[in-house]
Amino acid sequence: MKKVAFQGERGAYSEIAARRFFGDEIEPVPYRTFEEIFSGVERKRVPCGIVPLENSLAGSVLQNYDLLLRHHLSIVGEISQRIVHNLIVHPGTPASAVRRIYSHPQALMQCEKFLSRLKKAEKIPAYDTAGAVKLIKEQGLTDAAAIASQLAASLYGMEVLQEGIENDPENYTRFVILSKTAAVTPNAKKTSIVFSLRNLPGALFKSLSVFALRDIDLLKIESRPLHGKPWEYFFYVDFAGTMKNENCQNAIKHLGEISTYLKILGSY
Amino acid sequence: MKKVAFQGERGAYSEIAARRFFGDEIEPVPYRTFEEIFSGVERKRVPCGIVPLENSLAGSVLQNYDLLLRHHLSIVGEISQRIVHNLIVHPGTPASAVRRIYSHPQALMQCEKFLSRLKKAEKIPAYDTAGAVKLIKEQGLTDAAAIASQLAASLYGMEVLQEGIENDPENYTRFVILSKTAAVTPNAKKTSIVFSLRNLPGALFKSLSVFALRDIDLLKIESRPLHGKPWEYFFYVDFAGTMKNENCQNAIKHLGEISTYLKILGSY
Repeated sequence: MKKVAFQGERGAYSEIAARRFFGDEIEPVPYRTFEEIFSGVERKRVPCGIVPLENSLAGSVLQNYDLLLRHHLSIVGEISQRIVHNLIVHPGTPASAVRRIYSHPQALMQCEKFLSRLKKAEKIPAYDTAGAVKLIKEQGLTDAAAIASQLAASLYGMEVLQEGIENDPENYTRFVILSKTAAVTPNAKKTSIVFSLRNLPGALFKSLSVFALRDIDLLKIESRPLHGKPWEYFFYVDFAGTMKNENCQNAIKHLGEISTYLKILGSY
Repeated sequence: MKKVAFQGERGAYSEIAARRFFGDEIEPVPYRTFEEIFSGVERKRVPCGIVPLENSLAGSVLQNYDLLLRHHLSIVGEISQRIVHNLIVHPGTPASAVRRIYSHPQALMQCEKFLSRLKKAEKIPAYDTAGAVKLIKEQGLTDAAAIASQLAASLYGMEVLQEGIENDPENYTRFVILSKTAAVTPNAKKTSIVFSLRNLPGALFKSLSVFALRDIDLLKIESRPLHGKPWEYFFYVDFAGTMKNENCQNAIKHLGEISTYLKILGSY
């Protein structure tokens, strides 16, 4: 079975995304932090990992953008996962008995409207969503609930008291698959790169024109600070097309002429 | 005395930045959250506020970008403040007596190298840096330290045991001044805007070309998710020049032709 590293406890949204991407024939390997996933894959302790890069409500997961720069890994796939939050309790616990609700701070925030109706219940931040289910299970907390996935509820033998309690159903997370070795799959359609530029007028515009001049569509742009040079940036760009395509190769060659740093993160 | 809203307790880095911007003749008004500053200025409870938009190591303060979109305020000034972290204790406490170190999680992270030498001391996250000094003062914690500014140490009558304990001295935060009424000062040199685009190929490139075609330099670009439309974005752009300049007015008029939303955040 293929081992796939993910962050959090069993039942995390990352695990669900990994199962949708690879199928159920995987061995999900829980890691405590994103950094440990990057190191684990880089040192070949595990053949691949899955990490979130972006949520449609919260935006980019900046830490993982920074880790993509520091580690020598390739993005070899991506999957967009709808995030459905559920109120999870010990089987038989009624909503009226719930005094504390555990979950990741972002999940608590994304369910604010629903939670405002449970006035007596205190919201308590936890390390991750599935970990909150594990906590109320292991500590036998029958006056508490957790917010997490259906998978987490069933893995720990707990009950979903209320499904889909998030404020906004347009809640998706884009996960990417990381591997030590680059591989462009036949159905790949986009490429991610990161680059930095000389601090000159028009530099960013010129860098984006290498794509526009070749009718290559930009899908996303993200900037992160360049340490040691205040107010200069690394730019992360996703564009349509893969590095097997000559037009894209030419664009990257052109970008190389004007960038001070350029790294291809992967075509997938 | 001019009232200026800032986030955190007295002695916060925001207060230091406000004093450098306005001079010492201000009345700093502490607010618990950034959101409360935006609401307070919007409802004219306080004439202006100061909030961080960007740190040279951690990147953009995403929450404040989102708040700029939701509230009707103008940016009327900015100041870049060097962040110097200090180890602060009750007067007379030696380093060897320190068992716990309180500060904002980001400050604890930015002083990791120094803190790794204090092996016996537990790092405890606090609400903010100056608040951590207030805490060890008020609770009489003579076996604890806080990480915060010189100003916080002197306001609470505490001692700086070690100055400048941050890993990287190139640590600057860019603060902006918010006001209910737009005002372009004579020495203004940049403008901040936010816009969204139709989801069409080349849309982002075309939007940036309105500046390049007029030799207007882009200083920063940031993207934030557009809620309800997964993988579409609001773009925040800073460019050189002010809205008093005809060339910039033309660029904005041009951008208006291709954007679905456009808001000028201020020239300053």
